[in-house]
Formats: sequence, C-alpha cells, structure tokens
Amino acid sequence: MDGPVLPLGPPRAERADAARNRVVLLAAARELLAEQGAGKVTMDGLAERASLGKGTVFRRFGTRAGIFLALLDEDERVFQERVLSGPPPLGPGAGPVERLVAYGRARCCFLVEHQEVARAALDGRAPVPAGDGTLSRMHVRTLLGQVNLAGADVDALALQLTAALEGPLLLYLSTEDAVAADDRIERFARSWQDLVERVCRA
Amino acid sequence: MDGPVLPLGPPRAERADAARNRVVLLAAARELLAEQGAGKVTMDGLAERASLGKGTVFRRFGTRAGIFLALLDEDERVFQERVLSGPPPLGPGAGPVERLVAYGRARCCFLVEHQEVARAALDGRAPVPAGDGTLSRMHVRTLLGQVNLAGADVDALALQLTAALEGPLLLYLSTEDAVAADDRIERFARSWQDLVERVCRA
Repeated sequence: MDGPVLPLGPPRAERADAARNRVVLLAAARELLAEQGAGKVTMDGLAERASLGKGTVFRRFGTRAGIFLALLDEDERVFQERVLSGPPPLGPGAGPVERLVAYGRARCCFLVEHQEVARAALDGRAPVPAGDGTLSRMHVRTLLGQVNLAGADVDALALQLTAALEGPLLLYLSTEDAVAADDRIERFARSWQDLVERVCRA
Repeated sequence: MDGPVLPLGPPRAERADAARNRVVLLAAARELLAEQGAGKVTMDGLAERASLGKGTVFRRFGTRAGIFLALLDEDERVFQERVLSGPPPLGPGAGPVERLVAYGRARCCFLVEHQEVARAALDGRAPVPAGDGTLSRMHVRTLLGQVNLAGADVDALALQLTAALEGPLLLYLSTEDAVAADDRIERFARSWQDLVERVCRA
C-alpha cells in the first residue's frame, strides 16, 4: 500500500474549513460594505480582502449578488432570533396585538436598514429583493391566530397584512418620494400600528 | 425647384402611420399570445405575423418584454376606465367602503388574469411585474378619504392597503401554493372585503 495516506476524517475537516472560510468571507464583505458601499464590492475585491482564492469566493457565493444574499440571510437569522426568544413585546411575553405592533416597527427598521444590501442581492432572477416574506407571514399568522378574529380567513389576512407591512418598503419606497426617507420608518410604524389595531379591535 | 415634393403634413402622416402600426402590432401580439402562450412570442414572430419589418417592432417595443408591457398597459387603461366611469359599485355611485370592496375584487381578477403577461413584461430591470401600484394607490387613497377614519394617516394607510391587495398576487402567489390557483381570486376578494370592513368600521 504505497498510495497516498488518507487524511483522517476528511469530510469533517472540509466542513470546518468551509465554515471558517464562510466566517472570514462574510466578515470581509461587511468590512468592504462599510468602507466602500455595496456598489464597490466585487468578487475579486472580496477574495483579496479575505486572503482567499477567487475560486473559494465563487464556490461559496456563485455570483456577486450571492455575497449580499448571504449577508442578508445572516442578519435575518439574528432578527428572527430576537422575535422568537428576545425580550417582549417583540419577543414572547406580551399580548398578540402588542407583539404585532412591535413586530411591524422592528421589521420596518430592518427593511430600511437593509435596503442597500437587499437591492444588491437582486440578481435579475428574483423579482423581489429581501426574502419572500415567508417568515414574516408565519409570525403574523401565529399572532393573528391568538387574537379572536371572528369570521376572518386568518391565513389570507396574514398574507395581506404581511404585504401591507413589507410591500411598501420593498416595492414602492425605492421609486417614489411620497414618504421622505428620514421619517418613513416612524410613519410606517405608526400606520402599521393603526392598521393592526383597527383590524384586531373587537 | 427640382427637389422632391414634400408630402403634405408629414408629421401628421407619420403619427397616423405609427398609430396604425401600434394597433396592428398589439392585435398580432394578442393573437400569438392566445395561440402559443407568452413564452413563444418573439420579436421576429411578431414582425412576421403583423407583416411589418423587424425594425418597426424594435422601434415600437425596444425589447421582447416591451411587447407585454404594451399589452398590459392597454388593458390597464380599460380597467381604469371601468373604475373611473363604469357602473357602480366599481364605478362612481356607491359608498366608499362598497367601492373599495368592489375595487379589490376587480383588481384581484385583473392581476390573476394578467399574471402570465405581467411576468413576461419583466425584463430584469423592474423589480415588480405589473405597474408600480400608483393608480391603485391613488384610487384607494381617494376612497379612504371619503370614509371618516379618525386619526388615520390616510396616505400611509392607502399605501399599505394597496400592498395588501396587490402584493400577495404580485409577489407571493407565483412562488407558493398556500392558496390554490382555482380559488385564490374568491378567497383574496373575500379576505380583502373583511380587511376593508374591519379597517373602515366606526
């Protein structure tokens, strides 16, 4: 047996390597994003900053848009963590209407803060920048289910309210100035609160 | 003066020509769409069917997506005409809540019927298939203004309700099966009615 010695546990070693590269690449991408803005981040620039090969960057992200999708995904997870197990009223421990109001405000902030990254995550295949609203819809659905909404189709209502919350920020605000940038979070958060309270009142 | 005789009123003649070509091209596009589906409609095929030059088709529509955008635009105008001056409750002559309910039902039907064309009208530049919701938002805003909604930010609410109406059909339904295709119009129209009546009740 003169063949090459097989390294012990290559799959596990590879996974650890891949995980390390992922952390290094995302950290490097965040640095470049903060320093230069999304428009200047390139696959080459990212490889250089992370001191990794271009092949590694391409395998990890596929396209330039994939870099931003990965950043968005990481932040979505942190956001969902706050919703699922953070302090109330965003997290558990408050009433459903109060939690819906808090969710809308937090989500508005998240979407506005992530607008640049979400736009850069578009690669022409996806019609919508940030996610597909599935997690938002499931959360809104769960909370609406805890409110006593006699006669409502709670699944359809959850879909519509999620669109009411995310749609203006995803679809409309980037192309119009009906709501000025600096007060849009506050204005939308308030209007969301009004909408939720009207829908949920007995 | 041996030069060529100038035709009388060339600009007017040109405009009439362009208008005629437009009518011919849109009619040909509708024929091809009905016979073969959106996926099979091409610039070349359209030129051949309309018995016009390829250059004429390119000048008129710019891109393949432009064909579908023109079809959608034509249908949007017919739809808006029904809203602005058709019979009530979609047109004028009914109360604002009744008109909002009727508008939502009609708009659901329009968006579902035009889903194939709307998708084909996407050319990678626009993030959203059908329009930007501006006409819907203006109409919803007008009707909400006729309801006595104490304390509401009617502009923001109109933006959110428009997103609630159009968002699920534009963004979500094409990628999920939460609502089966054959009952989605009825289900969304009913849920829209419930939403509007909850928001508008005194």
